[in-house]
Amino acid sequence: MSISFSLKQIASFLDAQVQGDESVEITGIATLESANAHQLAFLSNPKYAKQLERCQAGAVILQSDQAQSFKGNCLVVSDAYLCYAKISAWFDRTPVAEKAIHASAVIDPTATIGEAVSIGANVVVEADVCIGSGSTIKANTVIGARSVVGNDCCIAANVSIYHDVQLGCRVNIHSGAVIGADGFGFAPNGNKGWQKISQIGGVVIGDDVEVGACTTIDRGAIHNTRIGNSVILDNHVQIAHNAVIGDGTAMAAYAGVAGSTVVGKNCLLAAGAHVVGHASLCDNVQDMAHSLVFKDINQPNSYSNAVMPLMTTADWSKKLCTNRAAKPNLAAIKKTRKKRLSR
Amino acid sequence: MSISFSLKQIASFLDAQVQGDESVEITGIATLESANAHQLAFLSNPKYAKQLERCQAGAVILQSDQAQSFKGNCLVVSDAYLCYAKISAWFDRTPVAEKAIHASAVIDPTATIGEAVSIGANVVVEADVCIGSGSTIKANTVIGARSVVGNDCCIAANVSIYHDVQLGCRVNIHSGAVIGADGFGFAPNGNKGWQKISQIGGVVIGDDVEVGACTTIDRGAIHNTRIGNSVILDNHVQIAHNAVIGDGTAMAAYAGVAGSTVVGKNCLLAAGAHVVGHASLCDNVQDMAHSLVFKDINQPNSYSNAVMPLMTTADWSKKLCTNRAAKPNLAAIKKTRKKRLSR
Amino acid sequence: MSISFSLKQIASFLDAQVQGDESVEITGIATLESANAHQLAFLSNPKYAKQLERCQAGAVILQSDQAQSFKGNCLVVSDAYLCYAKISAWFDRTPVAEKAIHASAVIDPTATIGEAVSIGANVVVEADVCIGSGSTIKANTVIGARSVVGNDCCIAANVSIYHDVQLGCRVNIHSGAVIGADGFGFAPNGNKGWQKISQIGGVVIGDDVEVGACTTIDRGAIHNTRIGNSVILDNHVQIAHNAVIGDGTAMAAYAGVAGSTVVGKNCLLAAGAHVVGHASLCDNVQDMAHSLVFKDINQPNSYSNAVMPLMTTADWSKKLCTNRAAKPNLAAIKKTRKKRLSR
Repeated sequence: MSISFSLKQIASFLDAQVQGDESVEITGIATLESANAHQLAFLSNPKYAKQLERCQAGAVILQSDQAQSFKGNCLVVSDAYLCYAKISAWFDRTPVAEKAIHASAVIDPTATIGEAVSIGANVVVEADVCIGSGSTIKANTVIGARSVVGNDCCIAANVSIYHDVQLGCRVNIHSGAVIGADGFGFAPNGNKGWQKISQIGGVVIGDDVEVGACTTIDRGAIHNTRIGNSVILDNHVQIAHNAVIGDGTAMAAYAGVAGSTVVGKNCLLAAGAHVVGHASLCDNVQDMAHSLVFKDINQPNSYSNAVMPLMTTADWSKKLCTNRAAKPNLAAIKKTRKKRLSR
Repeated sequence: MSISFSLKQIASFLDAQVQGDESVEITGIATLESANAHQLAFLSNPKYAKQLERCQAGAVILQSDQAQSFKGNCLVVSDAYLCYAKISAWFDRTPVAEKAIHASAVIDPTATIGEAVSIGANVVVEADVCIGSGSTIKANTVIGARSVVGNDCCIAANVSIYHDVQLGCRVNIHSGAVIGADGFGFAPNGNKGWQKISQIGGVVIGDDVEVGACTTIDRGAIHNTRIGNSVILDNHVQIAHNAVIGDGTAMAAYAGVAGSTVVGKNCLLAAGAHVVGHASLCDNVQDMAHSLVFKDINQPNSYSNAVMPLMTTADWSKKLCTNRAAKPNLAAIKKTRKKRLSR
Repeated sequence: MSISFSLKQIASFLDAQVQGDESVEITGIATLESANAHQLAFLSNPKYAKQLERCQAGAVILQSDQAQSFKGNCLVVSDAYLCYAKISAWFDRTPVAEKAIHASAVIDPTATIGEAVSIGANVVVEADVCIGSGSTIKANTVIGARSVVGNDCCIAANVSIYHDVQLGCRVNIHSGAVIGADGFGFAPNGNKGWQKISQIGGVVIGDDVEVGACTTIDRGAIHNTRIGNSVILDNHVQIAHNAVIGDGTAMAAYAGVAGSTVVGKNCLLAAGAHVVGHASLCDNVQDMAHSLVFKDINQPNSYSNAVMPLMTTADWSKKLCTNRAAKPNLAAIKKTRKKRLSR
């Protein structure tokens, strides 16, 4: 497959001003450092501005301040990163799934399947499911009874969607994700162990949501767990039962919220940031990587409580561990390291 | 589907005393705040006691101290949360799987399948597997050779169970969970890289165990990895090879134990709490969220070493990071946040 | 199945010196503590040296210093742990998959399948995939278009491999792993939410790589995400887009690297250790458990910034939380613990 667009075509789509030769043919996207004479690069992180000098790209997406001194072809825009994001789809070689239902798919006769839907091999669609027009369900995915997939969604291979889950339109779910598993609800029952609490609620997900690989969104205990519009969840994220995630919020890998927690709009939970149960975060809160939020946050700001300055383990041991009984024996650790990997 | 029970029926099952009208029909469970005149609510967290005043519920499960001043219908019990847990199953609308083997399931002829078993579409059951009576195996799950599933288990869709894994009775496993993958065992072999250690042991899981979505329990290196009775594991939990988890222990999301670690009975590992390898925890230990237990614990208590007071990232930077070379530039972080999400 | 080898056979394979009776028949491997008269044990962790006294093993793998005083049969070697690793495969009872393609597998006619390949039930192999000789693909796994699996790989059940992913030879991938999902790349687009960036790159994985259960390796945004030779990744590991992991590096459970980060050769990221985006680690770096590396590391060493001394939560609260508004109420925590499990 060969893709090629003139710089003029691209400029027109991005509403960009061309500086240089608008007839150059662009066949792909590359970094400033690696781009060849038919590839498009971009500069958004000032850290890489020096690379403009030796850049061999066919054209570069630049903001006006950087464009002034650049000698090569460029597209002058107000937001280079956003323009790169928008044009990236033109060079995407992801195979397009056939708009058909594979013969091996197991589709309950009560399911409603919209137009131009693609359903892959070994997909299982249970009773009373609705799948909206234009959606793609890839191989070996399972969609539980009474769940609804909106229009133009893309559900990757090996995704598990339980019963009574609702997805809006243009929702992307990556492989290994699990939507609607039971929330972790148990009552202690003395000597009889844990009494399981039936998780009666479902999950409702808005429009334009991304769910990363191996991310889990549990069903509600009583009411629904709710994910707003334009929420983006990275891999290995955990959304516990009854949680509510506001529109536009982003959660990086391993970020998680515990049960009944409410996260406002346009928040950012960085990698490994967790919020305890029944807490409430207002809009526009940032929790830095590895932070543990154990109370409500009512003021938009960036918060952290996670880590100390990075130091060698020897220093760390000296400064932080002098008063503990079992001081780590670094010599032993190093020796052990040579012997085996124990985790 | 319409569900309805009189308050009298519910009181009888819960051994509760009715205060008010025992003939009221209950059609569902809801929170104190949202319940309507035909829904049952409960109060267990004193934080929500104020909501009793405006509560519109058909009835509320209460303990005697709160019941005295309550004007509406209520069920007076000694443990409101436990009673809510017990009655929740009456209002569970989870579809009941048909007690049949789906035509598309691939079942080895040497497998033994009990009575009243439900096996979903595209399930794969390998040689010499035993599945106990009353168990349900949902779509696209794989059960490896010689593994045993006890009676009345429920294995959700897309679960992976390797060979030589034994599950007790009434074990629930959620989608994406992996039981019996190889433990992470390698010996350094000089310039030849890592020498893999065959993981010869299996996994043995007791009765009444819950395994959350995307949770992993590795097979033993030599002997079996063992999970006791009434153990409850949330999503994204990691149990490494040879670990032993005592009866009644609960592990929240992202909690994990490394290889050969022994956790006692009725312990609680909160979210993200990890225990290093070859450690031993006595019964009734609590490890708070994000803690890292790097030595044996011999006294029942609650332990932590994880986080500091939550503060703004600006304060955090000032107080904790003054002596490090690369102090985070908050202005830059904020600016970057506007531009893009980098994790 | 019965396995038995004479100690002489084992000594010959390991190039070990026999001390004692070389005719003893060995039927399995066990720990020093549990081994019977026909089982082989080993001593590598000096912590367990005392167990030699009462050891009932048929033979023990020992280094020369420990062998001198040992009265039983033993194999004297220079690296007991490595020798145990090498011999472990002789006692592995993992079922060998039949070298055939299961009738239920869905294989695109354009795929190229090597010799002596095993493809399990319900496996889906998309267009233009190549699978090398001797490889095993277990049940319900999906391999996306144009991906390449090298020779003698073993891909477990329910693995998801997207399009344009390349695996070297002798790669083991465990269940629930996801290779090639979209990297987490979005540009903020004002009131319009997040603009998704097409993830155009692929994933390239070297030879002799282990990928644990539920581990995710995202495809590159522009270029490929790259995993070197002899890299070993435990369960729940996250490799973000464009990351490069050097040969021989090991990452324990929950370890992760963010986008565009470069990790050198023979590094060790312990459990939960994370590296922020666009950082660079030189060869031979160790990041201790729960550390968060937020800058480049240019000196081989062991680093940490994660945890403080372990203490009771009561002490932790007193020492660390006196100045925060919402001091945790331990009495309340304990009481709540009795009532229910909230995460």
